[in-house]
Amino acid sequence: MLVRPLLIALAALAATAAAPVYRSSAEIVAAAPASDWRRIDPETLVYMDLAAGRVVIELAPDFAPNHVKNIKALIRAGYFNDSAVIRSQDNYVVQWGQPDETRSLGAAQKTLKAEFERPSAGLAFTALPDRDTYAREAGFSGDFPAGRDGKSAWMLHCYGVVGVGRDEGADTGGGTELYAVNGQSPRHLDRNITVVGRVIQGMELLSVMPRGTGDLGFYKTPEERTAIRRVVIAADLPAAERQDYEILRTDSASFKAMVEARRNRRESWFKAPAGAINVCNVPLQVRPAR
Amino acid sequence: MLVRPLLIALAALAATAAAPVYRSSAEIVAAAPASDWRRIDPETLVYMDLAAGRVVIELAPDFAPNHVKNIKALIRAGYFNDSAVIRSQDNYVVQWGQPDETRSLGAAQKTLKAEFERPSAGLAFTALPDRDTYAREAGFSGDFPAGRDGKSAWMLHCYGVVGVGRDEGADTGGGTELYAVNGQSPRHLDRNITVVGRVIQGMELLSVMPRGTGDLGFYKTPEERTAIRRVVIAADLPAAERQDYEILRTDSASFKAMVEARRNRRESWFKAPAGAINVCNVPLQVRPAR
Repeated sequence: MLVRPLLIALAALAATAAAPVYRSSAEIVAAAPASDWRRIDPETLVYMDLAAGRVVIELAPDFAPNHVKNIKALIRAGYFNDSAVIRSQDNYVVQWGQPDETRSLGAAQKTLKAEFERPSAGLAFTALPDRDTYAREAGFSGDFPAGRDGKSAWMLHCYGVVGVGRDEGADTGGGTELYAVNGQSPRHLDRNITVVGRVIQGMELLSVMPRGTGDLGFYKTPEERTAIRRVVIAADLPAAERQDYEILRTDSASFKAMVEARRNRRESWFKAPAGAINVCNVPLQVRPAR
Repeated sequence: MLVRPLLIALAALAATAAAPVYRSSAEIVAAAPASDWRRIDPETLVYMDLAAGRVVIELAPDFAPNHVKNIKALIRAGYFNDSAVIRSQDNYVVQWGQPDETRSLGAAQKTLKAEFERPSAGLAFTALPDRDTYAREAGFSGDFPAGRDGKSAWMLHCYGVVGVGRDEGADTGGGTELYAVNGQSPRHLDRNITVVGRVIQGMELLSVMPRGTGDLGFYKTPEERTAIRRVVIAADLPAAERQDYEILRTDSASFKAMVEARRNRRESWFKAPAGAINVCNVPLQVRPAR
C-alpha cells in the first residue's frame, strides 16, 4: 500500500517539472534582453509641459506622414507655446490648442488631406490572436495599436492615443487642435479621423482635467482652461536637456510573452484567467532610457 | 440628350424615397415612448455626496444579491459617512472606503462568499450582434452590461461599473471598499471580482481624482484623499429630498434602434460607419425622473 502514494508523488513531481513556470508580464518585461527594446527616435518625441508636469507624446509618421510633418512644423513655429487645454469630455477625449487661433502657423498648413488609413502593404504588423469587435485584425505596428483588413491599416483609438481634431469635412484638420483619448476606447472614431501618435508618459496629467460643462466638454470660460507652457520636439533640445525613451518592440519575443501572460493571468489574485485580451488592454511598455 | 439627366433625376428621387431616414441615437432616445423607460427602484439607488457634487450609483441585486444586501446594511449603518476616496489609478479604477477601518459595520459583514457570476437561467438578456473579445455573448441584462455563456452570466467591467475590492482570496471582499472603472474597460477582471452596480450620474466627479502616487494608485497621505460626506439609499430619504431616475429599458425597441444607430453612425461628421459596437461603448440612457 506504499506504492500508490509513491506513484502519486512521482506523478506530482513530473507535473511540476513539465508545467511551464508562469512569469507575470512585469517579470517578463523586467527580464527582456536589451535587443528587445528600441530607442524612440527623438525626431518623433514631443514634450508638452504643463505646470503639473510633462506629457510625452510619440508621433506616428508611418500612419500620418503629412500630419506629423505639419505638427512638427507647428511645434517648431512655437504654435503650441502658451496654448491651453480647451476641452475635457468625460470618457471620451481631452483636447488642446490655441483658443484664439490668431497665432502664426509658421511654415505649417491650417488643413491637410485626411490620413484616416494607409495601405497595409509595406507595414509591419503583429496580430493578436483574439477577436476584436471593430477590426478584422487587431494588433500592433511599430509602437502603436493598429487594425488591418485586406488592403488598409489604421491606428486604433485606444486610451492615450492622440488624434487631430477636425470639423465636419474629412480634410478640415491639420493638427492645430489635438486630442487624447481619456476613457473607454472610442473605436467608432477609427478611420474617421487622422491619428498621429500616443501619449507615452504623463497621460495621468491630462486625464484628470476637470470636465468642461459646455457642449462636448469644451470649457465655457478661459478660466477653466489649463495652460500649456511649451511644446518642443526632443531632437531640438541639447542632449543634456533631453530624456530619451525605450519601447519594448511589439514584434519581439518578450512582447509576445508579455501579451500571453496577460491573456491568462496566473498571479494568485486571479481566479478565472480571461483567455483573451483586447488590443486596447495591452499596455505598451515604455521606459526612460539611461 | 435631355432624357438622361431626367432619368438620373428620377432615379435619385426614387432612392431618396426608398432610403430609410436615419435618426441619430439622440433623436431616437428623445422620441422613445414613456413605456420604453423604467423608473429605477429607489431601494437600489445610492447617493454619494462629495464636496464637488453627487455621485449616483444603481445597485445590481440580480448579479450580487448578498453583496448588495450587505452594502445597503453598511450604508444604513452610516459606514460610508465621512469616508474617503483612497485610491485613483490612471486608466483603471478609483476606490473609496473608510481609511482606518475602525468604523462599526452595523448589521453588515466584513466579508462574504464571492458572487463573481450567476446562473444564466432566469436572467433576461439582450445580446448585441457583434463579436466581443472576452465573452461568448455580450449584451445587457436589466440596466447593466453583461456577458453570458452556456450556463453563467456576469456583469462586465465597463466604464463606471462599480465593484467590491478584495484581497487575494476570492471570499475576502464584502463591500467596505468599492471601486469604479475610470478608463478603458479592464475586462480581465470579469468573473474575478464581485460587481455590484454602476455609476449612473456624476462619474465625472470620480474620474478626475488626482492619481495616487503609491502602489496601485493608492494615496500615500491622508491629505491626498477626497472626503465623502454622506452615502444614503434614495428610498430612505423623504420624497421631497429624493431625485428619482428613469432608464431606457435595454429590451425596448428604442434601445435596439439606438444601438443600431450607433453601430452605423450616419451623422454627416462620420465618413466610415463602424458597422459594429462594443458592449462597453453603448451609452446606457438615464435621465432624472420628473
